[in-house]
Amino acid sequence: MNRLIKKRSEKAGLPPGTLVHIGEKKTEKAKITIIDYDETQFEEKEAKTIEECFPFKDKPTTTWINIEGVHELAIIEKIGEHFGLHPLLLEDVANTEQRPKMEDYGEYIFIVLKMLFYPPDPADDEKANEVKAEQVSLILGSNFVISFQEGIKGDVFDPVRERIRNGKGRTRKMKSDYLAYALVDAIVDSYFLILEKLGEKIEDTEEELVTNPASETLRGIHHLKREMIFLRKSVWPLREVLSCLERGESSLIHATTRIYLRDVYDHTIQIIDTIETFRDMLSGMLDIYLSSISNKMNQIMKVLTIIATIFIPLTFIVGIYGMNFEYMPELKWRWGYFAVLGIMAIIGVWMLIYFRKKRWL
Amino acid sequence: MNRLIKKRSEKAGLPPGTLVHIGEKKTEKAKITIIDYDETQFEEKEAKTIEECFPFKDKPTTTWINIEGVHELAIIEKIGEHFGLHPLLLEDVANTEQRPKMEDYGEYIFIVLKMLFYPPDPADDEKANEVKAEQVSLILGSNFVISFQEGIKGDVFDPVRERIRNGKGRTRKMKSDYLAYALVDAIVDSYFLILEKLGEKIEDTEEELVTNPASETLRGIHHLKREMIFLRKSVWPLREVLSCLERGESSLIHATTRIYLRDVYDHTIQIIDTIETFRDMLSGMLDIYLSSISNKMNQIMKVLTIIATIFIPLTFIVGIYGMNFEYMPELKWRWGYFAVLGIMAIIGVWMLIYFRKKRWL
Amino acid sequence: MNRLIKKRSEKAGLPPGTLVHIGEKKTEKAKITIIDYDETQFEEKEAKTIEECFPFKDKPTTTWINIEGVHELAIIEKIGEHFGLHPLLLEDVANTEQRPKMEDYGEYIFIVLKMLFYPPDPADDEKANEVKAEQVSLILGSNFVISFQEGIKGDVFDPVRERIRNGKGRTRKMKSDYLAYALVDAIVDSYFLILEKLGEKIEDTEEELVTNPASETLRGIHHLKREMIFLRKSVWPLREVLSCLERGESSLIHATTRIYLRDVYDHTIQIIDTIETFRDMLSGMLDIYLSSISNKMNQIMKVLTIIATIFIPLTFIVGIYGMNFEYMPELKWRWGYFAVLGIMAIIGVWMLIYFRKKRWL
Amino acid sequence: MNRLIKKRSEKAGLPPGTLVHIGEKKTEKAKITIIDYDETQFEEKEAKTIEECFPFKDKPTTTWINIEGVHELAIIEKIGEHFGLHPLLLEDVANTEQRPKMEDYGEYIFIVLKMLFYPPDPADDEKANEVKAEQVSLILGSNFVISFQEGIKGDVFDPVRERIRNGKGRTRKMKSDYLAYALVDAIVDSYFLILEKLGEKIEDTEEELVTNPASETLRGIHHLKREMIFLRKSVWPLREVLSCLERGESSLIHATTRIYLRDVYDHTIQIIDTIETFRDMLSGMLDIYLSSISNKMNQIMKVLTIIATIFIPLTFIVGIYGMNFEYMPELKWRWGYFAVLGIMAIIGVWMLIYFRKKRWL
Amino acid sequence: MNRLIKKRSEKAGLPPGTLVHIGEKKTEKAKITIIDYDETQFEEKEAKTIEECFPFKDKPTTTWINIEGVHELAIIEKIGEHFGLHPLLLEDVANTEQRPKMEDYGEYIFIVLKMLFYPPDPADDEKANEVKAEQVSLILGSNFVISFQEGIKGDVFDPVRERIRNGKGRTRKMKSDYLAYALVDAIVDSYFLILEKLGEKIEDTEEELVTNPASETLRGIHHLKREMIFLRKSVWPLREVLSCLERGESSLIHATTRIYLRDVYDHTIQIIDTIETFRDMLSGMLDIYLSSISNKMNQIMKVLTIIATIFIPLTFIVGIYGMNFEYMPELKWRWGYFAVLGIMAIIGVWMLIYFRKKRWL
Repeated sequence: MNRLIKKRSEKAGLPPGTLVHIGEKKTEKAKITIIDYDETQFEEKEAKTIEECFPFKDKPTTTWINIEGVHELAIIEKIGEHFGLHPLLLEDVANTEQRPKMEDYGEYIFIVLKMLFYPPDPADDEKANEVKAEQVSLILGSNFVISFQEGIKGDVFDPVRERIRNGKGRTRKMKSDYLAYALVDAIVDSYFLILEKLGEKIEDTEEELVTNPASETLRGIHHLKREMIFLRKSVWPLREVLSCLERGESSLIHATTRIYLRDVYDHTIQIIDTIETFRDMLSGMLDIYLSSISNKMNQIMKVLTIIATIFIPLTFIVGIYGMNFEYMPELKWRWGYFAVLGIMAIIGVWMLIYFRKKRWL
Repeated sequence: MNRLIKKRSEKAGLPPGTLVHIGEKKTEKAKITIIDYDETQFEEKEAKTIEECFPFKDKPTTTWINIEGVHELAIIEKIGEHFGLHPLLLEDVANTEQRPKMEDYGEYIFIVLKMLFYPPDPADDEKANEVKAEQVSLILGSNFVISFQEGIKGDVFDPVRERIRNGKGRTRKMKSDYLAYALVDAIVDSYFLILEKLGEKIEDTEEELVTNPASETLRGIHHLKREMIFLRKSVWPLREVLSCLERGESSLIHATTRIYLRDVYDHTIQIIDTIETFRDMLSGMLDIYLSSISNKMNQIMKVLTIIATIFIPLTFIVGIYGMNFEYMPELKWRWGYFAVLGIMAIIGVWMLIYFRKKRWL
Repeated sequence: MNRLIKKRSEKAGLPPGTLVHIGEKKTEKAKITIIDYDETQFEEKEAKTIEECFPFKDKPTTTWINIEGVHELAIIEKIGEHFGLHPLLLEDVANTEQRPKMEDYGEYIFIVLKMLFYPPDPADDEKANEVKAEQVSLILGSNFVISFQEGIKGDVFDPVRERIRNGKGRTRKMKSDYLAYALVDAIVDSYFLILEKLGEKIEDTEEELVTNPASETLRGIHHLKREMIFLRKSVWPLREVLSCLERGESSLIHATTRIYLRDVYDHTIQIIDTIETFRDMLSGMLDIYLSSISNKMNQIMKVLTIIATIFIPLTFIVGIYGMNFEYMPELKWRWGYFAVLGIMAIIGVWMLIYFRKKRWL
Repeated sequence: MNRLIKKRSEKAGLPPGTLVHIGEKKTEKAKITIIDYDETQFEEKEAKTIEECFPFKDKPTTTWINIEGVHELAIIEKIGEHFGLHPLLLEDVANTEQRPKMEDYGEYIFIVLKMLFYPPDPADDEKANEVKAEQVSLILGSNFVISFQEGIKGDVFDPVRERIRNGKGRTRKMKSDYLAYALVDAIVDSYFLILEKLGEKIEDTEEELVTNPASETLRGIHHLKREMIFLRKSVWPLREVLSCLERGESSLIHATTRIYLRDVYDHTIQIIDTIETFRDMLSGMLDIYLSSISNKMNQIMKVLTIIATIFIPLTFIVGIYGMNFEYMPELKWRWGYFAVLGIMAIIGVWMLIYFRKKRWL
Repeated sequence: MNRLIKKRSEKAGLPPGTLVHIGEKKTEKAKITIIDYDETQFEEKEAKTIEECFPFKDKPTTTWINIEGVHELAIIEKIGEHFGLHPLLLEDVANTEQRPKMEDYGEYIFIVLKMLFYPPDPADDEKANEVKAEQVSLILGSNFVISFQEGIKGDVFDPVRERIRNGKGRTRKMKSDYLAYALVDAIVDSYFLILEKLGEKIEDTEEELVTNPASETLRGIHHLKREMIFLRKSVWPLREVLSCLERGESSLIHATTRIYLRDVYDHTIQIIDTIETFRDMLSGMLDIYLSSISNKMNQIMKVLTIIATIFIPLTFIVGIYGMNFEYMPELKWRWGYFAVLGIMAIIGVWMLIYFRKKRWL
């Protein structure tokens, strides 16, 4: 639940553009790393103060400034000032409650995305079952990309870093727009991992549904449904973000990069498709569950009815001969007892045959 | 229920533009406050008669006239006359049944919004649980903003007032369009508080659903669903209102303000998103509730069936030996009684084992 | 049911433009009234023959010809001929099965609307509960408005007539397009009355649902649902009709009138909104009803199970001591009877405690 | 079922434009009729060979060639060749699995429609209950209309033929486009008959649902639902077909005819509206049916519970006094028997009162 | 399940354009066949190495290179290099997880489709019941078509090959765009076969539902529903693909071919229509199934209630006369026993009549 809405009440009433950190603080101290490269040169360093990043603004090379920890508002503020970013943009960076979006500010493009992951810590089962999101904000300028993360350890950008370091592939040859694309692509690619895991869980739950449906199965379906709601919220807006980037008129994005953006767009559509398919499957499973409960009830009722229908009439018969009337001729017959036993056996067998014919047995 | 449709039958048949107050009278006497400012000067006063507002119309400074209490039709009428407002607009101000909308009249823009709040009075539980709405009408002219409220005590505009008084921030430097934006923003921001509270309630209800579902839980879900219908009705049209304001061609709204309007628009989308998510969750919860009822029924039926299936056959057996036939050899056996007891014990135990195997126990 | 589709089979195969009256005949003789006015003069009369209307066609004043009773095809035909109306239009006037629509024929605009009302006769309960519709066709020319009604006594146009007679307000000063607007507005306004009544019924049904749900409640919900289907059918198309009128390019409608049309359009949206809200509420109520049935069943089953579970084992015990074995030591014990009574009491009490713990009591 | 998909597997793999007849053969020999007319002259004849039609191609008069029986591929082929029709068009004529569509080939327009009817033969009840479809293909050229039917006896075109013969009305004065319109109009008009019949059935089923819901009622609802699916499939695409015809840019269709096409378009919308209304009603009826089953179950359970709750405790009491303990003081009391009878009567009556209070009786 | 999402986790993090084969390896060695033709000449051969294909690139004739087996990345790479294909396109060819799409790269068009089939092997029932998909990628250049298949034995292209060989029909006379169309058409045509089979299965399941609904029927419905989800995923995007091809501005596709593409587009719409119809029918069937379970339960409950209601009171009566009171006058009556038997018979018969009247029998 707490994943669906975060406290932002403290913010109500503040003037627009006020920096307030909304969300959990996920790291102690913000970490700033700088990667600067062009086709021929490459530099990578960890900055101690944010001021170390400033000289890169005017260098012709492509610079990627990655900041982990958006709760340090001073950093956001200084960067905003030096790079001339709009106050509303900075506000959005600090507020981890954004939905994915893309805003073209002319000289730079602002992109908000959600990085999704399963918490690695397997200690707490319940928690480990839930997809978590980390907000990533990208600011794409003509010669730089600034990325903000919430500060959770580990990200999906390592392969991109590796490619820049090696100088292989296309990345070093191209500009900042390709770098931004590469980061977006890395995030979208990681969604497939989440979907695979969810797919496996759905498979397991379905298996369980067929073999032994219990009320935990229902809870499992419900849990998966909520994961889907959560995922959907993170992924659906991406569609528009990417279509805006691809078809937008910003001069920051070159034609060659657009083809790559179309590719990520395709992936997003594929992910949305899969999410919708999963949703369809889950509601199908709910139907199955409900009718399996009804079937079980039928089963129980049948047992009860068979037992009651056989023995209640028989008990009535033995009751008759338990009466204490003085004049009951049958009681004196030599074979009366055995005759009654026989009659009851016949009734019982006849009823069993009847139930078998009705397919209750 | 009464929140969903108000009496407006008295209005049927009246010529268009006739001022009729529709809605409850929420204050005794209308209260008029005037705030007048530009970058260098600031004036705030409470007006006793509406005529005190009139001189501000032609001053170059930005004026905010706030009127609480739309049941005093004379005030609305006089303002309309002096500021040259269209009769249909005035009619809409007096009718608190409007849906949020935005109308561009050329020289001024008319915006209708809903201020949402939980009634502060905790005396009456039922009522305190319901979101209430107060209609706010804004008229944005080139150098003034007129706002009408229904007159409920307290509003969400205090932080805006404070910012104007202090002269800090952007507000004093900018024109009436920014003021209008600030008011809209304050209202939209306050929606997040409502959503947080609703989120908590949904969380509580879900908790209840898992631990101890009762028929009050169902009523709770139903109540929350209706709150959602109510909220949706107030918030959905906002989307269009804000997109019209942002993309509209009115010269009253300057380019710099448009970026801020895009920000509120974003917030609105976020709120709508959350409402839809809540709706999805609530219908998921209804499914869970219904199947938990079915599960309970199964449980009850199992108990009944187990008891009946064990004891009905045994009662039949003891019935047999209660018969009064003269010739029943078993009755004379020395150990007959204990043999029957033993046989019945065996049957009982065997049945218990059978039920355990069937996982009914 | 009969309200949802009327016999129009007799029409199949006839050439297009053939006048056939479809619908019930609702008055004996058609009634024609003429109101002719401009800013300075006013004339009102009841015409005996349709020919009396013809001279008004070429007068510069605004003329409103109102005809009640579309089953007199001769009248429709003559009017059509004299005013140069298209045969298909006349066909539509006579066929009361139209959906609301607006057609621009260049020299005149054809508008079809539904007047909704509750039949006033309270004799027959069932019928009085159903919203009825009367088709109103408006033909708006440059200096005339012709309105056709089905001929049911009473309409919602009286306030409009009154305003024209008094010469107060805007109506007399403006042209035929404003008159057409006033008529449409009167009809749309009357929908709010219907919605209020339906709202009250929904409220009542909901009250009933909470206090004492019976199968009549279900029928009530079903009935209201069908009223909604009926209303929706009449109101939805209005949205497009009014948006076409407002945004259309017809020179018959002046700019000043368009603002008024926007106002009716707003009302229509509000009505549609309310209808959708009602529909949402009704399906929520159905859910509640169904689960209240399930709850009741649970209640019944609990009573049965408690009784059976307590007494079936006890009956078994008394059965044991009703057996007639010769050697049953307990039977001879001095306190055997009281011991058995005591044991049974203990079992009974223990079971009651068990059920209380399980919250079945 | 067989109505929803027909064998077309034999066609897979054949080159496009290959003539294959898909569908049942519905007549032995194709029948060709020619009607040729203009304002002054009229000729009607039945052609023995298809070649008799060819001379009409170049006559200035309007010619209507009607061919019943699309399984005679030679005819289709020869017509195609002589009138210069595209092979894909001919393929579509022979394949009765088309959905309604309209294709503008420049020199001619190709329209596919479904003629709907109830099979007249009342022998087989089940069959007579099902709407059947016959595919009609129209080819509209500048001076001819060619219509293909599947060859089922009887069509809805007789009134059109009659109007041409009589020379009354508009048809003879106008061109081939008006003829095509008249044919389409005749088909669409006949849909109203189908809807009327379906409306009656729905009414009957609803009546049944209220008075005596049985499992046949459910089957009836299901059957009607499927009829709706079938109808919808035939009618929905018509909307687009007619809107294309009306708004299309083809010079084959004159402005005067377009007004008539708008009229048919209106009818189609009305039909679609009615179908949707019927669907809504049918799903409402399903809800009613399901909850009436639940209500019945409740009723049954109540009977069982009342009987069991009254008699099980009483049987226990009589069981007590059937025990054979030697020392049971009550057994020796003079009025013991009557006292027990009295106590049991009191218990029984008290329970009846309790059930009445609970409204179970 | 495994058909809905395939492992592509191994790909996350790799640079875009990296060739990775995703999907099962379906053949040992890739097979390359070349068909080269124009109106007058024809050549067909199987290539051993991919290099054999290269000379055809610059020949004016139309060449069709068909490669079965996309796991041999070297082949894809070499072709890409020689024909100047974009790396992202090659990546998509190797990844069999694509959704159908069409991309215009200027000099060539890239089309991805799904070939659907039932696995021919009837050994494993479960598997044979599932539709499988094979991805087909087409690259359409000005004088060549390259098609990639996953390598499953057998495809639906044989009729196209045959037509080219024979030189009959249109294919040899036209360019590569017509060849691409022919391939797409062959695939779409084969969907009808799948739909027919599914239609038969739905028919069978419906039959089963009416005659003898068991829990396997439910599983059958569920299975068919999932087949529909799968099919839908493969077919829906086709709609856009074909509409883009038909209406696109690419100079690679000639006007004459566009008419043919419209035909395939029509088929696709028809297929989508049928899928939606099937979905509607399946959810209707689920409703029927659920209510048939409820009906069965009612039936069972009736039997139980009838038996219990008749015999429980009778057992109570015999219990009374089994009591051991010393003073019970009836016991001594001469005809007491027979009187009691008679009374009980009357009660029993009366109850049977009551149940018959209530239509429970």
